[in-house]
Amino acid sequence: MTGVVESSIGEVAGFKVAGVNCGLKKDGKLDFALVVSDRPCVAAGVFTTNLVKAAPVLVDMDVLASNGEAIRAVAVNTGCANACTGRKGIQDAHVTASWVGEALGVRQESVLVMSTGVIGTHLPMDKIRQGVRQASAALGDDWTAAATAIMTTDTRPKLASICVTTASGQTFTVAGISKGAGMIAPNMATMLGVIVTDAALPLASAQAALRSATEYSFNRIVVDGDMSTNDTVLLLANGASGVTLDNDDDLARFEAALRAVCTKLAQDIVRDGEGVTRFITVNVTGALDDAAAKQIGNTIATSPLVKTAFYGGDANWGRIIAAAGRAGVPLDPERTRLWIAAGETSDPGAFSLCLFDRGIAAEYSEAEATEIVTQPSVSLLLDCGLGDGQATIWTCDLSHDYVSINGHYRT
Amino acid sequence: MTGVVESSIGEVAGFKVAGVNCGLKKDGKLDFALVVSDRPCVAAGVFTTNLVKAAPVLVDMDVLASNGEAIRAVAVNTGCANACTGRKGIQDAHVTASWVGEALGVRQESVLVMSTGVIGTHLPMDKIRQGVRQASAALGDDWTAAATAIMTTDTRPKLASICVTTASGQTFTVAGISKGAGMIAPNMATMLGVIVTDAALPLASAQAALRSATEYSFNRIVVDGDMSTNDTVLLLANGASGVTLDNDDDLARFEAALRAVCTKLAQDIVRDGEGVTRFITVNVTGALDDAAAKQIGNTIATSPLVKTAFYGGDANWGRIIAAAGRAGVPLDPERTRLWIAAGETSDPGAFSLCLFDRGIAAEYSEAEATEIVTQPSVSLLLDCGLGDGQATIWTCDLSHDYVSINGHYRT
Repeated sequence: MTGVVESSIGEVAGFKVAGVNCGLKKDGKLDFALVVSDRPCVAAGVFTTNLVKAAPVLVDMDVLASNGEAIRAVAVNTGCANACTGRKGIQDAHVTASWVGEALGVRQESVLVMSTGVIGTHLPMDKIRQGVRQASAALGDDWTAAATAIMTTDTRPKLASICVTTASGQTFTVAGISKGAGMIAPNMATMLGVIVTDAALPLASAQAALRSATEYSFNRIVVDGDMSTNDTVLLLANGASGVTLDNDDDLARFEAALRAVCTKLAQDIVRDGEGVTRFITVNVTGALDDAAAKQIGNTIATSPLVKTAFYGGDANWGRIIAAAGRAGVPLDPERTRLWIAAGETSDPGAFSLCLFDRGIAAEYSEAEATEIVTQPSVSLLLDCGLGDGQATIWTCDLSHDYVSINGHYRT
Repeated sequence: MTGVVESSIGEVAGFKVAGVNCGLKKDGKLDFALVVSDRPCVAAGVFTTNLVKAAPVLVDMDVLASNGEAIRAVAVNTGCANACTGRKGIQDAHVTASWVGEALGVRQESVLVMSTGVIGTHLPMDKIRQGVRQASAALGDDWTAAATAIMTTDTRPKLASICVTTASGQTFTVAGISKGAGMIAPNMATMLGVIVTDAALPLASAQAALRSATEYSFNRIVVDGDMSTNDTVLLLANGASGVTLDNDDDLARFEAALRAVCTKLAQDIVRDGEGVTRFITVNVTGALDDAAAKQIGNTIATSPLVKTAFYGGDANWGRIIAAAGRAGVPLDPERTRLWIAAGETSDPGAFSLCLFDRGIAAEYSEAEATEIVTQPSVSLLLDCGLGDGQATIWTCDLSHDYVSINGHYRT
């Protein structure tokens, strides 16, 4: 049995966290976080597919490959992405890990590092050292502080947790924090996520579960279509609850819980997207296959014309159909239908207002359409009438504030 | 010998044009155009690759396939795209052509039609009829009126012409008008273009020349990455100058002139892009092949983060490198270098300021970089260090005004 996803995190057995300020952000805001396990974790990671990978991404890929069953800590700094920083960047990531290892009394090889912020500048190592010192002295259960300390242009911390009961009645927790507000592409983004569980599971199961959960959560959100150099989602499983996921039933419960936590964190990233005024759920059904549905959904969700129309509260379905038509996968306008509904939904029964019906505008009330698309949450259902492929993508509008935020990010 | 591309059009032998107001636009603005030849033209067309094609696109494709050596006129309406309009849309396009045929005393099958404007509404046929009447009575040499009458969100008409001298000393003209300010994707856009020449040439040569010229002009511009349902470029050759392009030398001169005219019109579309404050020339060299170079250039030119950084006058090279890294083609940051220069240039010698040098930030003055990227025209040179592939893409920044224009286009 899986419970309800909470927007907060209480205690997760065997894990301690901290979020501190070490001068990376101005105004004393929290800017450095640690997530620490009191025992070795099985750990899995999913990383950006950008060919330009930040130093911490490269370092973590190495660490997980060689030491993925004995991870003890994750350190996260903001303010500097440590990307495009050459050999010194790699060295700085290693030094950060070594300082964390010293402070916690664990091996450097058991420490993962994450960075987010401006590309192309070196880590201010004096501040990082200070952050490690402070955070390792402040470890506790304040997950909100840790989630706040990994924020960049985010306006609020993102947390999710869920309590799971196994077939035999034991309980364990899956919990996670994430950040990311711009550079959110179809395939991850300037996003970081750390998911923990106090259950134990095999390394191969952890990796498979994280990859699948990511595919249907973090890989299904679009803010602006840009993909960053730093995107990383990590999963740490320490077994401190005493639960071992050693049968298919319990493993399936874990996977459902992990996907629920990742989906909540992914949606929160969109909800808090740069300059967002509207949350949009794009459902595509009847595509040739699931991959085609995802491609159509991503193209709609990435279209600046679709996004600006939503910002303006304009039910401009022509732009949605035009975006679908250029997605690079089969589409026949004569078989395609488009509905809208207020709120967040993927239930076909919830869509009563048809805007486009097989090649031509449907008969609908423009006033009713406007009433729907001016809501804070709007859902689309595009049925392609070609096959069984389906996908749901979560996205947002493109507003003046997005332009303001990104026009002057570094200055 | 090919002359200089002019931003105006004088007389083109055998062609007459008109631009009139028939009530499609408010405030009496010109909204309907005719381009007419006094004799049959060889005609070629390049159309949107969007699977959702507007009625006039479908009709023109048919007409060119069956009657491509005897075209007499092109009619263009604004205000309504006649896209997603079903069978009635096709019928309306045919009726428009038949009215033009009647008014000019030519066969309906010799008339091409183009539409641009809102998707999903039917052509207001009473106004179209009025437009045909007025325009056919107003034919003359006022190409500026015709270019003005095809504008939508454009702020100024786009014209280009060039006089070409053949090997034997005869002269002919290549001239064109275009429109398009948003929905400008890597592969055409909400753009229309009509190119005419008073030279004669074989149909196959016309089609090949137009396809090649389009590939290096209209297919190399990006405003927002959206591709419309209506994109069309037509070439009409009537031979009224007495020049027949019947040898490779003269054909090459024609092709160069056509490409020059198309490039001028394409660049003018970007310069007049929705909300544009900066014109950006993206040069990619050293890619694995030309297709990879184009892909990298398009990804950079389409990136909202790159475009907003340019709007803000921020030399944020990290976003450019990150965009290149997600283009889906080979890139090795350790071999990649990025330069910038003020103005419009594709000459490698013009780039003196290196921002990124093989994996790491170059040593440069931020003040000097800011001085360059705050110019009205900025050029990039990204050398991938992998092969001989190269491409040049023209694009613009993403501003508050783009969001304003597209957030409230229909209202």
